[in-house]
Amino acid sequence: MYRVDLNCDMGESFGSYRMGNDEAILDHVTSANIACGFHAGDPGTMRKTVKLAMDKGVAVGAHPGLPDLVGFGRRNMEISAQEAYELVVYQIGALSAFVKAEGGTMQHVKPHGALYNLAAKSAELSKAIAEAVYKVDPELVLFGLAGSELVKAGESVGLRTASEVFADRSYQQDGSLTPRSQQDALLTDHDDAVQQVLRMVQEGKVLSRQGVDVAIKADTVCIHGDGSHALVFARKIRESLSHAGVAVQAVSSI
Amino acid sequence: MYRVDLNCDMGESFGSYRMGNDEAILDHVTSANIACGFHAGDPGTMRKTVKLAMDKGVAVGAHPGLPDLVGFGRRNMEISAQEAYELVVYQIGALSAFVKAEGGTMQHVKPHGALYNLAAKSAELSKAIAEAVYKVDPELVLFGLAGSELVKAGESVGLRTASEVFADRSYQQDGSLTPRSQQDALLTDHDDAVQQVLRMVQEGKVLSRQGVDVAIKADTVCIHGDGSHALVFARKIRESLSHAGVAVQAVSSI
Amino acid sequence: MYRVDLNCDMGESFGSYRMGNDEAILDHVTSANIACGFHAGDPGTMRKTVKLAMDKGVAVGAHPGLPDLVGFGRRNMEISAQEAYELVVYQIGALSAFVKAEGGTMQHVKPHGALYNLAAKSAELSKAIAEAVYKVDPELVLFGLAGSELVKAGESVGLRTASEVFADRSYQQDGSLTPRSQQDALLTDHDDAVQQVLRMVQEGKVLSRQGVDVAIKADTVCIHGDGSHALVFARKIRESLSHAGVAVQAVSSI
Amino acid sequence: MYRVDLNCDMGESFGSYRMGNDEAILDHVTSANIACGFHAGDPGTMRKTVKLAMDKGVAVGAHPGLPDLVGFGRRNMEISAQEAYELVVYQIGALSAFVKAEGGTMQHVKPHGALYNLAAKSAELSKAIAEAVYKVDPELVLFGLAGSELVKAGESVGLRTASEVFADRSYQQDGSLTPRSQQDALLTDHDDAVQQVLRMVQEGKVLSRQGVDVAIKADTVCIHGDGSHALVFARKIRESLSHAGVAVQAVSSI
Repeated sequence: MYRVDLNCDMGESFGSYRMGNDEAILDHVTSANIACGFHAGDPGTMRKTVKLAMDKGVAVGAHPGLPDLVGFGRRNMEISAQEAYELVVYQIGALSAFVKAEGGTMQHVKPHGALYNLAAKSAELSKAIAEAVYKVDPELVLFGLAGSELVKAGESVGLRTASEVFADRSYQQDGSLTPRSQQDALLTDHDDAVQQVLRMVQEGKVLSRQGVDVAIKADTVCIHGDGSHALVFARKIRESLSHAGVAVQAVSSI
Repeated sequence: MYRVDLNCDMGESFGSYRMGNDEAILDHVTSANIACGFHAGDPGTMRKTVKLAMDKGVAVGAHPGLPDLVGFGRRNMEISAQEAYELVVYQIGALSAFVKAEGGTMQHVKPHGALYNLAAKSAELSKAIAEAVYKVDPELVLFGLAGSELVKAGESVGLRTASEVFADRSYQQDGSLTPRSQQDALLTDHDDAVQQVLRMVQEGKVLSRQGVDVAIKADTVCIHGDGSHALVFARKIRESLSHAGVAVQAVSSI
Repeated sequence: MYRVDLNCDMGESFGSYRMGNDEAILDHVTSANIACGFHAGDPGTMRKTVKLAMDKGVAVGAHPGLPDLVGFGRRNMEISAQEAYELVVYQIGALSAFVKAEGGTMQHVKPHGALYNLAAKSAELSKAIAEAVYKVDPELVLFGLAGSELVKAGESVGLRTASEVFADRSYQQDGSLTPRSQQDALLTDHDDAVQQVLRMVQEGKVLSRQGVDVAIKADTVCIHGDGSHALVFARKIRESLSHAGVAVQAVSSI
Repeated sequence: MYRVDLNCDMGESFGSYRMGNDEAILDHVTSANIACGFHAGDPGTMRKTVKLAMDKGVAVGAHPGLPDLVGFGRRNMEISAQEAYELVVYQIGALSAFVKAEGGTMQHVKPHGALYNLAAKSAELSKAIAEAVYKVDPELVLFGLAGSELVKAGESVGLRTASEVFADRSYQQDGSLTPRSQQDALLTDHDDAVQQVLRMVQEGKVLSRQGVDVAIKADTVCIHGDGSHALVFARKIRESLSHAGVAVQAVSSI
């Protein structure tokens, strides 16, 4: 039987600022990546989001980002491997304390935004991040872009990893994501997105923009939590996967 | 045999900014209170300070503060008990991840600056802080001003506590510290300070400004780490205690 | 002819976080208090909000707050008069640069949240704030709670001031606002709120909770910009004032 | 008669953290670049540093940086031209308010650290920065690396510019600075540094690492304010210039 995890970024509110639709989205995903206060989130939001995810039986993970609240952690910064290690240790620790305080166990770590993208292409940053995760808790699962340096680094240090795929992004024939700056980077049709995910999960393949099939490993699918269609799409993809006989469950229970 | 712990605030550098003389002071104290990034400290400083303390055999603790870097956590803020709980969980978690990554165990938590002072007088804030510590790790020792609400709250939730005394501050007949705004708040003579500590440790008493002896519990003595005389005084008090037959050791080993 | 200004807090978005409904509210008010990056706002939001207000012919003012983004500047902090002076100079300067860059002139300064409330009752903080405004630009109008220390301090240093009243808050017989912690602090009925404003503007009186009329000066009325009813109420109060023959115009043009 | 300005970065303390030796260095330089709170500095430090510079007759400039306090504005960030414009407007405004409050006039703007370096090579960022300066105050002088895009952009928008040279950095035959990662990037001998500056000022030439003379414009020389030798070197270079008959004076008075 095929199995896959659905993950979503969560806990991105900050102080009086609201972002996302966490409570509703949590009904449809199996892993929650919770912001840790650097690119988004704050101690109060973290506490509430951890509790909410645990109450709904969704696995909890840390979503560490660059220290850039005004840029939402999306702007590339030239940080050293040492700095990446330190940022990740700090943020994993902060989130894990809320998980412990609520009596739970943290499942995974998924870097956010620019940190995720920088790591995907940098063996050095990925090694630093993977070591940070391993040293804090070797039982944690490291989420990274399928085929990326981050997944390789995670395996190399002895962590369990989850290869992440995107439902609504198109792929290149080398297995990378089509850059957002290009015209056909996004799959705007929900049915196309669902079909792409099903094929990645069931056949381990994705049809690239160049018309060639590319092998891809799909352990977990990223679901976007904001935007007006997020909730509708989350429900749809979960239903379609179940309908197709794919078990949707958290990585740690697969 | 009498025993006492000597603690000092550490890891208060931030980015390119240096503060304190941690490496030298660590030769004289037995517990290090390490800043967690809110009032001082940053992930890199935390990593280095944790390692330095462990290398020197000094017990490591978290030193959570108010979110006020420019004010160094010394300005009172009207935070709710809920906010105090969240701030403390977050910061303990962040520091504990560095301790784990270095293969150590965190010994204690001591709130910093305005948070320490506000908690000393507020049963509500103290309860929130004590619960935060307990929920993250019930083995942690909570440091608080001797006789304060914080020590009471720690005992009440089931934590081990350490009553903190000050070598260079004078006391009032109700056991409180003489406010810094008053003339005779500070003991400027090193010998007087040493005698005050010895008496607190050996007799459980301190002579108040009003000329009356007051009962006081002295589990740990706060040593200041900055200022030109800090190092000299740290060495002197440690030597004087040893000379008087008082064992100077970390709270967790007492 | 009676005249009054309608002011609203604006520019409170931050990075990717949206707050308020500035564009729509600007159609109904005559003065915009724009956040300056300490409690809310960021350079991009400031630029856009200044331009938007100027395009709609609304007078622009700075809305300096405490350095507490996560608390939205609403938590009291014990800052010194010197710190208040410095915070206000800094934030006025930052906003005024955007106003100059767009070819406009800044009309006023209104402290935000806890800074506004602390100043209302503290002659010392008010003096520091008033001096900050005066030294940066003596032509600026200082907005403060009617009858407060801030208005007195503004007059004392030689600034033009605007006494601010609230449409939806009830008053005590000493002219102060009923604390929000009390049951009848808010006027929930729009018609009552409109009547209260009309009476304050036309008769210089408000009926206190104690049933006694109190003299009050109403140069500008605070309109809240968030919440679902904000826009409806802003439109209603503006129409009611116009209907009653009260000229609604910016303080600087009165 | 030859003339040159000596500038130094100042006001880089933050809250309780001290950096630099501003008071002493101010006796030897003619222009002070004052940090504006993003990479360093805070409202209190800005106020004090502006006053100190004015009291010593040193021309005051804004030193805007990237929003990266923990990295001291030295880490490259991928910011847009729009963001660069906004950052610079904000920070110039904040500093200029302190200058006005003290009754002075701001002379110049010099971007800091990574912002300075990114601008030097990017026509787009430089245009945004130059426009920000011009729109806030067209009388301001823009400081930029000699031969850089920033100087070109400044001239292009109609600003007066000052070409900056370094006493203690070696140059490449294309006129650029030898990257710090290379072995001979720094001139460690004070006499060599003084000779390099004298030749740049008097002959408009510098001997590159490749042994070829390169034409260079030297309106202002950057003096480093921290490090143990900073003060000695500042005094030495000023004396050597005066001795050689070069008038050392602020850019605005040249």
